[in-house]
Amino acid sequence: MDILGQLSVELRTQALLISGLELLAWDQEVCMPPAGAASRAALHGTLAGMVHQRIIEKILPLLREANTLSDIDDATRRDIRLLLEDAEIAEKIPSDLVRAFSEAASYAQRAWVDAKSRSDFESFRPHLEKLVKLSREKAAAIGYQNEPYEALLHLFERSVTPTDIEQLFSELRPFLMETIRLCQENPIGGVEYPPLYMSAAEQKALIQTVVKQLGYDLTRGRIDESVHPFCTGISPDDVRITIRINEKDLTAALSAALHEMGHALYEQGLPREPLGWPITHASSLSVHESQSRFWENHVGASVEFWTYLYENVLPHYTLSWLSAHTPFSLARQVNKIQPGLIRIESDEVSYHLHILLRFELERALINGDLTVRELPVAWNDKVAEYLNLAVPDDAHGVLQDVHWSMGSFGYFPTYSLGSLLAAQLSEALTLSHPEWPARLSEGDASLPLHWMRTNIHAHGARYRIQELCERATGAPLSAKPFIRYIRRKVAQLYEGLALPA
Amino acid sequence: MDILGQLSVELRTQALLISGLELLAWDQEVCMPPAGAASRAALHGTLAGMVHQRIIEKILPLLREANTLSDIDDATRRDIRLLLEDAEIAEKIPSDLVRAFSEAASYAQRAWVDAKSRSDFESFRPHLEKLVKLSREKAAAIGYQNEPYEALLHLFERSVTPTDIEQLFSELRPFLMETIRLCQENPIGGVEYPPLYMSAAEQKALIQTVVKQLGYDLTRGRIDESVHPFCTGISPDDVRITIRINEKDLTAALSAALHEMGHALYEQGLPREPLGWPITHASSLSVHESQSRFWENHVGASVEFWTYLYENVLPHYTLSWLSAHTPFSLARQVNKIQPGLIRIESDEVSYHLHILLRFELERALINGDLTVRELPVAWNDKVAEYLNLAVPDDAHGVLQDVHWSMGSFGYFPTYSLGSLLAAQLSEALTLSHPEWPARLSEGDASLPLHWMRTNIHAHGARYRIQELCERATGAPLSAKPFIRYIRRKVAQLYEGLALPA
Repeated sequence: MDILGQLSVELRTQALLISGLELLAWDQEVCMPPAGAASRAALHGTLAGMVHQRIIEKILPLLREANTLSDIDDATRRDIRLLLEDAEIAEKIPSDLVRAFSEAASYAQRAWVDAKSRSDFESFRPHLEKLVKLSREKAAAIGYQNEPYEALLHLFERSVTPTDIEQLFSELRPFLMETIRLCQENPIGGVEYPPLYMSAAEQKALIQTVVKQLGYDLTRGRIDESVHPFCTGISPDDVRITIRINEKDLTAALSAALHEMGHALYEQGLPREPLGWPITHASSLSVHESQSRFWENHVGASVEFWTYLYENVLPHYTLSWLSAHTPFSLARQVNKIQPGLIRIESDEVSYHLHILLRFELERALINGDLTVRELPVAWNDKVAEYLNLAVPDDAHGVLQDVHWSMGSFGYFPTYSLGSLLAAQLSEALTLSHPEWPARLSEGDASLPLHWMRTNIHAHGARYRIQELCERATGAPLSAKPFIRYIRRKVAQLYEGLALPA
Repeated sequence: MDILGQLSVELRTQALLISGLELLAWDQEVCMPPAGAASRAALHGTLAGMVHQRIIEKILPLLREANTLSDIDDATRRDIRLLLEDAEIAEKIPSDLVRAFSEAASYAQRAWVDAKSRSDFESFRPHLEKLVKLSREKAAAIGYQNEPYEALLHLFERSVTPTDIEQLFSELRPFLMETIRLCQENPIGGVEYPPLYMSAAEQKALIQTVVKQLGYDLTRGRIDESVHPFCTGISPDDVRITIRINEKDLTAALSAALHEMGHALYEQGLPREPLGWPITHASSLSVHESQSRFWENHVGASVEFWTYLYENVLPHYTLSWLSAHTPFSLARQVNKIQPGLIRIESDEVSYHLHILLRFELERALINGDLTVRELPVAWNDKVAEYLNLAVPDDAHGVLQDVHWSMGSFGYFPTYSLGSLLAAQLSEALTLSHPEWPARLSEGDASLPLHWMRTNIHAHGARYRIQELCERATGAPLSAKPFIRYIRRKVAQLYEGLALPA
């Protein structure tokens, strides 16, 4: 077999083993009995170790050889270079460091759960210090041009630098803060509606109906419940989401479900072959997040979507609050801009300020400009500055997110990148198909689904976020479409309130 | 690291990968969306291939080297020889044959499902012919002393020969046939009770209560529903069973659940360390079946167990039939001896005649004494001879079981071996703890569970069935305890009916 043939075989095997890891992780959250954790960790570690070893021993040598071939087409050469870029990062991190990191993260996560429950940062501090130290070692091993944090960010988003993110945020920050101020000074008038109560069984049925209607193929997926909703793509024909029901408020479970459905539509839309080559993978976390955000916010928080629900779905259930509402009042309730202490509960606008403060803090931690000991005070200061809120305790502050306890520094910015990309994609979609919102109000989401399939899903990981964005929208990734989107939304729902240009 | 250290590392990795395969199989039956089958098959094949390759490339060389060491204790030497015996079989089967077999079996299973639904043996015949041919090649590759079938039987039960099984059956057969004749001539008197109806939700709750009470640890297990009940041991801390509810008849779902629970108790009782060494594996299919049969029949079909249910469990449910029954009448209903066409629905006595006819037919097929074309007539003749029944169509005859469509020849006898061993273990248990049935009637199953833990589970796969039986019961495996058990049961439930000695 020639080099490309051998490479294809190894990439296929690798992709299958990774899908096995996905299934292990899904089962662990959804099915595994509690006592199974230790042996599951050993199995996961063994399989993950084999996957890593195969990159170094089998895939990298083949990629390097393939990269010297002269008689291959440009697209294949591009693919090989992309794969090589990622595989070389894996090679640079010594396996001792991988093991030490994974062990430290495992202890740190348990310590974090405990520390959060008691709001006791001090007990978590040594674990976080260790992870910061190991992350700096990892950054040094990978290498960087300007700052250690750059290397970690590249693990999640290869083509974006900390400076790029800083620039996007410097455009966003004043707009976000001014928007929040104006919305708080001009609250939505009219009645204060109670939360949208709905029984668990009815919410599950409704979510199932709605995600099917929007295009999630349940013969190639399934829906379960878990503490934290997530999506697992085992193959394009087996993409599972989990939801979390909150009987007190339909909108919480529904928007989380639409978020995970957005991830799932992406995974279901990936090409199946040639398995293991870039076209069969999702691009990056940010691109994934653009899909979840698009369906959660641009679809699921629109007046048109609530018109569809109001007219075609909600009447099938016994809902005491329905008659007091209109589609418009429901959309208003969903879109209320009101900063809070908790990132995952926050509105679309203050969400980015949550990310910004995490980005600034983790960047400072990794670059050596902030110590872990100084972190809680720095956190509280930034919450006061950006969100104008006082943090009562660390559980509602620096301890709220799991990411740092997993050693995931450089992850948070992908949330904002995804949200900005979602707005830019949505704008391009509307330019091509101005009728899509009207169709959505009748329950037809085929235009946005088809557009995403063609412009995003079909390319897999063949383009990094910047190039994908340019191809899909004709322009580089920018904060402007998001700003325009929020301005339109506020004007629509806050009775003509005009935001700064 | 020394040879034993290296071997331990490889055995541990192997055990973990095999537990991954178990999880894949469980997920496929319980969770996987229908469209996921193709990519799941690819993943399963890849992982199974790696497991097989590791035996040949990593484990066998280490075992061979370890087998020459002089400074090891006898128990370790025994373990190494056991592992070597099994690994050498894997080495003998050429990988081309493994692949061809797996492919043929995959097609055959689909053809069988279709053929069974249309009761059309002819469409299945070419697939079965192919599997018989490949199985004969497999037998030749493995090697045997007296007949090809011996090699296949050894894949499931290493220490038992076809002649051993023939001898056990030659003792059993006249007793079984005479028992059936006498029971049919002297039917249980009194009222004919209707089946024990119970709603699905109530049956599920009851089964959960009962298996917990008997000792199945649900913090290390879980119960789901599937078309065919089964047990999956992922690790001793993650042992899952499935059940199948039949609202029309509580006894069907309950006895199947107790059967799977018996398998699960064995898996939960296996030592955890040193992972991968024989002590951490279940012994053989037959030994596994001895555990499931013990809990299904010796516990679950006893008057004492139904006394416990009648007094402590059934009153918590709304059951229209309860007041018409006594524990004794319930046990009678569960134990009715009445031959039928379908193996999996048959009583404890005629069950062995079902196995006997399959054993004789598959032995003749593999040894070249019967063609696949002759099989359906041969089947029907044996059903007439042993069970005195006429087979109306192949769906109720030769097409009823999945085993042959999977190429599993040599599997059926393990069912009878397990059932005989269960009776022999039960007799030894009663000798040690004559009070166990009385305790069971109060819901206390700790004596049998502890006895099995000590005498069977704790040894893992360190002893083959014959040696395990001798150690646990002081005698070689025999049909006599089973015969005594049935004689006692018939005398008890058939109002003093005396069976031949």
